[in-house]
Parts: sequence; C-alpha cells; structure tokens
Amino acid sequence: MSEQNFADRLSEAILAKHSPVCVGLDPVWDRLPAEFRDAGGASDDPLERGADAIEGFCKRVCELVAPHAATVKLQLAYFEIFGPPGIRAARNVSRHASELGLLVIGDVKRGDIGSTADAFAQSYFGDTSLDSSSNPARALPFDAVTVNPYMGIDAIRPFMPYCRDHGKGLFVLVKTSNPSSIDVQSLVTDEELVFHRVARLVAEWGAECVGSHGRSAIGAVVGATFPRELLEARERMPASPFLIPGVGAQGAKAEDVVAALGEPATNGVVNSSRGILYAYEKDDDPNDWESSVVRETTKLANALWREE
Amino acid sequence: MSEQNFADRLSEAILAKHSPVCVGLDPVWDRLPAEFRDAGGASDDPLERGADAIEGFCKRVCELVAPHAATVKLQLAYFEIFGPPGIRAARNVSRHASELGLLVIGDVKRGDIGSTADAFAQSYFGDTSLDSSSNPARALPFDAVTVNPYMGIDAIRPFMPYCRDHGKGLFVLVKTSNPSSIDVQSLVTDEELVFHRVARLVAEWGAECVGSHGRSAIGAVVGATFPRELLEARERMPASPFLIPGVGAQGAKAEDVVAALGEPATNGVVNSSRGILYAYEKDDDPNDWESSVVRETTKLANALWREE
Repeated sequence: MSEQNFADRLSEAILAKHSPVCVGLDPVWDRLPAEFRDAGGASDDPLERGADAIEGFCKRVCELVAPHAATVKLQLAYFEIFGPPGIRAARNVSRHASELGLLVIGDVKRGDIGSTADAFAQSYFGDTSLDSSSNPARALPFDAVTVNPYMGIDAIRPFMPYCRDHGKGLFVLVKTSNPSSIDVQSLVTDEELVFHRVARLVAEWGAECVGSHGRSAIGAVVGATFPRELLEARERMPASPFLIPGVGAQGAKAEDVVAALGEPATNGVVNSSRGILYAYEKDDDPNDWESSVVRETTKLANALWREE
Repeated sequence: MSEQNFADRLSEAILAKHSPVCVGLDPVWDRLPAEFRDAGGASDDPLERGADAIEGFCKRVCELVAPHAATVKLQLAYFEIFGPPGIRAARNVSRHASELGLLVIGDVKRGDIGSTADAFAQSYFGDTSLDSSSNPARALPFDAVTVNPYMGIDAIRPFMPYCRDHGKGLFVLVKTSNPSSIDVQSLVTDEELVFHRVARLVAEWGAECVGSHGRSAIGAVVGATFPRELLEARERMPASPFLIPGVGAQGAKAEDVVAALGEPATNGVVNSSRGILYAYEKDDDPNDWESSVVRETTKLANALWREE
C-alpha cells in the first residue's frame, strides 16, 4: 500500500498547526547556549563533544517548536563538520523530530547521477540492508531532501519512486536566496531564464507524484530574497510545495512570501534558521534562550498564516 | 608559510607516476569480493558491518593502485549509505590513501552558500576545533573536492582561501558526463551555452589560485562522454586541471580525452571507478580481484600517458 503523498502530509501538517514555518537547524558551536557548550560529555575527542552538544541543542529546539512549526530542516553541513559523530547526531535529531510529529527535511543539496543518486536515495529514503534478510535501519532518515538540478533529471529520477509511492518529497533548487544565484540561475536563454526553465522542468517531473490535494511531492527551493522571481517561480510550478529560505537573517520579510504560499497558506514552508535559533543573543536575558526560540517561531507563524 | 599549490601537487604526482589516472572508490556492497563481504566483523549493526567491509576493500585498492595512479576519488554517497560508520570508513580510507602518497579527491558535489559552504570548507579542508586550544582533527580530510556551481560564486568563495594558500583544490562541475546534463548545462543563453559561461566563470574564479606551473587550484569536472564539449571546456579553462569522468563503464574511450590533458598529460586526471574496481567480475578467476585492479589501472594509465 502506498503511503500518503508528501505534499498532502505537508499541507495537513501546516493546517494542523496554522504554521507554514520550517525551523532551520543550523547548529553552530560558538553560538550554542552556554549550557550545551559546557555539558559536552566526557569524551576527549572534540568531534564527539561537539556532536553531543549540537544534538542536545537541536533536540531541545525540536521539542520547543513542535507545537508551532510544521517542519524542521537539518542543514547537514553543520553536522558533517563533526565527522562521524556529527552524522550520528543528525540521525538522532531527525528521529527525535519525527517522534514529535514534525516533518523532517534534510537540507543536503545533493545532485549526482544514476547509481550515486540511487545511493543517496537509499541513504535518506530507503532501507540500507546488506542482504535479503533486510534491516530497516535507514542510514539517515528524512521525509524530504533538497536536491540540485544542475545535472538534470538523472539526479532526480532515483528519488521519484519514493516520492510517488512512499510519501517522500523533494525540494529542487530553482532560485536560491543568495546574491550570486544570478551567476547561473538568471542567465538568459533563448526563450527564458535558466531558473524559469528549471522551474518548468520541476513541474514536469512532479506531474507523476501528485497527491490527493492536487499537489506534487516534487517541490522547489525558491528564495524569499527575490520576491518577483518567487512569484515567477510560483506561476511555473503551481502544484509544487515551496521551501522558502531567506526570511530573517538574510533580509526578506514575511510579506514578501505570503502570496507564494496560497490561502490557506499550505503550499510550502518558510525557513528561518539563525533568526530563531540565535535570537537569544540579542535578548536581555541570554539564559532564557528557550523563550526566544518559541517567541520567534510563533511570531513568524503568525506573520505567514492565512486562512481562506 | 603557504603550502604547495594543488595544481602543482597534482601535475607532479601525475608526472612521477606517468599516470593521469584517478581511481574512483565507489564501493558497492553487492559487488565486493567475497572475502570482504564475509569478513564483516562481529557487530550486529548492518551499518557497522557494511562500513567495515567497504573500508577494508577501499584501503586494499589504494595499496594496489598507489604505484599506478596519481589520485583516488571517494564518491561519498557510497559511504554515507552506511550512516555514521560509513563516514568513519571514508575518513579512514582517506587517511590511508594519503599515507600511501595518493592525492585524495572527495567527490561530494557540494554547493551551498555563505555560512554553510564555510562549514563544508572547514569539514574537508580546515580544522574542526571547538575552542581556541584547537584540535587538528579534520572531520573528513581531502586534498580537493567537487563542488556544484548552480548557486554561483557564493558556493565557491569559502573554499578559495584554502586553494590560494593551503594547497587545496576544487573541481567545479562544468559539463557532467550523464545524458541529462543537457537539461540545464546545455541551455542556450544569449551569447553561449550555460556550461560555456560556467567554464568562463571557473577560469575567472581560478585566476587568484595559480601555482608555480601557471595552473590553478580551481579545476573543473568535465565528462568524457561529450568529446567536443570537453575541448570547448578546455579552450575556456586552459589553466584548470580537469577531473574527467565517463571513461569505462559510462562508455567513453581514452582517445576521447587525451587532448584535454596536454603533453605531458599533467593537466587533469581521468576517473574510472567500476571499470577498475569490478573488472574481476568478468574474469576467469574472480578470486584474483587484486590482479584485475592493477591490470585495469595500468592499462588506463598507459592509454592516457603522453610525454612531451
């Protein structure tokens, strides 16, 4: 039996919480609340100590935001920096978030071909079993991951069976939020900009992964920092959930993105990472970081949420 | 003091071995020689057992090819599939290869912005230290990594100080070897194809990372499966070392790529993964996999090597 389509799972999660918020887990050692940096555990290995600290912090953030956010997004680079223990931490955080009812996005930005993309798909969505007696331990389990389209559909195809039949989702990078995204994404082709073309490809690829609400499990990353381009992308991908970075620390505002989410605001999530995690640094009482996390998450949810 | 530029390290390694070969480490459990699948160790955890097996296999391959290849390339996806133990295996293989005098390329195809790219650069090239007492344990050490240009120079910039001053290198995806690479890379812009533009960007980015042989530490991935495009890319990036996939299992031949390597053939390496690792499957004596690895590596080196 097929599992529920990711697009349906996503919009139902947003609806249930009245919150199209994605809390970005970008754990940076130097910026962790002191209690996590000080805990650190007994290990002499700095990678172990670091991984323990970011795991503890991210798990606690998940607990705090679970009532107020539909999704969390693990930026894997911040975990990888701690080597093997960092990957263990990512896995533990992902599982904890799932148990709390959050949808978990792996911000892995992978893009590779054929057999390698198969390996990625298996790592994140499949079972890693060494023989036919099959062990269900997924290497690093996510509900959806981000992927890079530079290599074309070969990089996307291995993920598609999981999107079509097993409730998993993709967010394809279309127009990213950083300034130099124009270098490639805004090149003018004969007929349209590169990212316009990529957007149309995403819509095309997504057609076979549509859930019961008419939306596809193949979504797109579209940055909030280019509001006009965000709407251009929406026109070309009406059925794709958006993962929208760039609000908060990168400068975009909630008003810039609400139109792309629809009414009710269920056709995507807006990510904020540093603006939520590290708001406490500017507060009067930096020991009360937990309140800051909840405050910033609900503030963003309220700014974004629209009902019909 | 600056370390020797990566482009110089690479061409000297090629010259010393008369071999512009890069042996691709794509360890696939099902295809490992029986001795590694059977060894497996005592762990009940299939991820641990799998990681031990691929680590043992890849280390042995490194020992076999060290006299005959300039570089090895770890395709990280095949390690990640085994979760945290897989990353530990990748680290151990990378260190072992370095000790054997091989340059080690991490085929990570990363592409992300600002602070995240910083984290990647630190994982692969920098020190992961948790405090000022600084620990030299790099999370996952490589001499060079592959990066994806879809997000523009923001994804490249954090790596550049390491390329300029610390002997590290990059291979930017320009024209990849897979069929659907045309989806984006061969779009026609107003003046040129997307990958032509990306090639010119790579040349531009590389200008500040030139070593004493006039070559840059900022290289490019250009697939052998499109021979005309390979030469077009070379015209636009004369100083960039190429990492050339697509020979062997993907169908391209050594003749297709020699012109792009120069004479002597030191301006890049040609990767073969499955064609070397799993040649033994077709041999009369599948137990003699070690001979097959050496035979295929030297055969490719001989087909590619040109002196002045």
